[in-house]
Amino acid sequence: MPSEQAAIVGAGQTRFGALREGPRAMLREAVDAAFASVDRGIDHREVEEAYLGTLGFNGWQIGNVSAVLAEEARLEGAPVTRVENACASAGFALRTGIQAIESGQRSAVLVVGLEKMTDAPSRRRRYWLGVSGDTEWERLAGLTFAGVYGLLASRHMHEFGTPREALAEVAVKNHAHALLNPKAQFRKAITREEVLSSPRVADPLGLLDCCPVTDGAAALLLTSASRARRYTDSPVLIVGSGAGSDSLAVQDRASLTSLAATRRAAEEAFRRSPWDRTQLSFAELHDCFTIAELLAIEDLGLAPPGGAAAMTLAHETALGGRLPVNPDGGLKAKGHPIGATGASQAAEVFLQLRGQAEKRQVPAAARALTQNVGGSGASATVTLFEAS
Amino acid sequence: MPSEQAAIVGAGQTRFGALREGPRAMLREAVDAAFASVDRGIDHREVEEAYLGTLGFNGWQIGNVSAVLAEEARLEGAPVTRVENACASAGFALRTGIQAIESGQRSAVLVVGLEKMTDAPSRRRRYWLGVSGDTEWERLAGLTFAGVYGLLASRHMHEFGTPREALAEVAVKNHAHALLNPKAQFRKAITREEVLSSPRVADPLGLLDCCPVTDGAAALLLTSASRARRYTDSPVLIVGSGAGSDSLAVQDRASLTSLAATRRAAEEAFRRSPWDRTQLSFAELHDCFTIAELLAIEDLGLAPPGGAAAMTLAHETALGGRLPVNPDGGLKAKGHPIGATGASQAAEVFLQLRGQAEKRQVPAAARALTQNVGGSGASATVTLFEAS
Repeated sequence: MPSEQAAIVGAGQTRFGALREGPRAMLREAVDAAFASVDRGIDHREVEEAYLGTLGFNGWQIGNVSAVLAEEARLEGAPVTRVENACASAGFALRTGIQAIESGQRSAVLVVGLEKMTDAPSRRRRYWLGVSGDTEWERLAGLTFAGVYGLLASRHMHEFGTPREALAEVAVKNHAHALLNPKAQFRKAITREEVLSSPRVADPLGLLDCCPVTDGAAALLLTSASRARRYTDSPVLIVGSGAGSDSLAVQDRASLTSLAATRRAAEEAFRRSPWDRTQLSFAELHDCFTIAELLAIEDLGLAPPGGAAAMTLAHETALGGRLPVNPDGGLKAKGHPIGATGASQAAEVFLQLRGQAEKRQVPAAARALTQNVGGSGASATVTLFEAS
Repeated sequence: MPSEQAAIVGAGQTRFGALREGPRAMLREAVDAAFASVDRGIDHREVEEAYLGTLGFNGWQIGNVSAVLAEEARLEGAPVTRVENACASAGFALRTGIQAIESGQRSAVLVVGLEKMTDAPSRRRRYWLGVSGDTEWERLAGLTFAGVYGLLASRHMHEFGTPREALAEVAVKNHAHALLNPKAQFRKAITREEVLSSPRVADPLGLLDCCPVTDGAAALLLTSASRARRYTDSPVLIVGSGAGSDSLAVQDRASLTSLAATRRAAEEAFRRSPWDRTQLSFAELHDCFTIAELLAIEDLGLAPPGGAAAMTLAHETALGGRLPVNPDGGLKAKGHPIGATGASQAAEVFLQLRGQAEKRQVPAAARALTQNVGGSGASATVTLFEAS
């Protein structure tokens, strides 16, 4: 068993969208916001180590981005490790930060996620997104990311009779949530009809089933639970962390209607948790495409296989429902700056479990889960949080 | 204090040089060699997590390389995290693996380093190496990596009267060591005169003061110390691990004759160690340029500031000397596949501390240190090892 438990004592993020700022300024803004959110303050010199999740789109002309974070976070010699696991980069960076605390070697660390996507030429952007999936059997054969998720959606509809409307409802719900989130990229309500009639990207998925291209950064300050109350009366405790991997190419996987990496990550995270799936207040899930939210709900055991569609159509996953999913708008509407997403999910959890989520507050939120997926399911992390 | 100590029970690597194999085959070869080196064997399914250090040169058309390692190492669902900290990628990956064991969450992990450099077009290679240093104040102004180390060398010669011959002697010694290492890229003796007359790259450094462009992969199997003896009677114990960072641009640093990141990493690593600097049997240091080995010796406290040159000229750092440095040939002559170097250094330690280094064996080797530097000193890790 770990010698220490980890807790979040501060979190901050930039607005998500097409930002004018470059990566340096975005890092600084997110980190400064995280420091400013610590109720009784924390000195920069107390941070002993940092972890940066970023895919690092080619457009920046910056390598060794760990060193850039060390400078912008004014760490004065504390080491920084860059973690890159495609769209799950920050989820894995968070996991690494949690382990540093749990190892007893660190009592305060910074976890940051970053991506600047909108200023990359579209050809470069396609390349960097494309190589996060399989190259030999998928990308070079013309299968895009949307194409892969289109296959998963078709198979899910075939096996479980999942209605196309349930996919659309995921987008409608997440846009409605994002309307309440001042940091979200899309603050615009959409209708089920608009999703269904949006230009087809990869059958059955339309444009409004897909998450956007986004700039953004998010930062988390973690300390050991035993030290957390120096900084705040309401730290957010991390009670479980799990991760898993799967084949890169979907053709090599056991199932097309389930992501084994998510299942494995969830199993590990819940193994240590003091509470179970039935006690969750809400979840932040990796809805890069609408089908991905349904898969996540089922893989996490929040609905039986094939059961997520009915739950979604019955508005159980909407704010006000039994188990709100993506109260911040999710990847679909808050936006999906690849390497920042996993940290931004935890930043939302930090606000929700402290009752600071304003108009999108989940009532009596006490226990939360985040799920972050790399590639088309080649890796995943699941983290469990609890209000103190 | 950590609840567990980490130990290496297996290590393997590819030959270093211009390899015909692609990244997948290189990963497989290094990982298979590590598994094969475990005295009583270890099942692939016992490995609970893996960490991959790689800069990921652009030439591969592969992203999400963590997933590729999961496949090639046959991890069957165990998570893989890619760590990228420029030339210190594998040093930081090793550190992350050590913390996973020390946190008590993992009892067996795989740490791998990988780089395939020789097949990248030279323009792309220059870009990927260049961006590991500062872009705004150095690279775009025309300052190359060799240029930065040339400045450090000039300043060191100015402040301490370091003779040019001492730099040359580093290269001569490391080539002599590499002659004894069947995995080394350069198995060719060179003379001091050849180094001194080699084509000038960045004053005062000549071509033979610079490490080569190299393909290579290295893999380490770590378990908790308490579990290690299931697999071997002679695990190599990890008794200290430290890391540090510094400004990306050399102009922002406090000194040009010392790397603060190395000093900080060493201080942290020795804080926990049961023995001190005077008890080291040998060291594997990051000699990307000859001056870097002298800086490392001084920053690690193995010689006083300005004292490494005399030590080198007196052959104290050669095999047979008081404190052999880079018995495997170092980055200079074994080769420097960026993301693989930190893991390969530890693989050499594994052989040496088990008395398996054949012709280059350091007599009675019992305690060792590895130092891995990212960029031109923006980050560094130091790891301490002990024979069991």
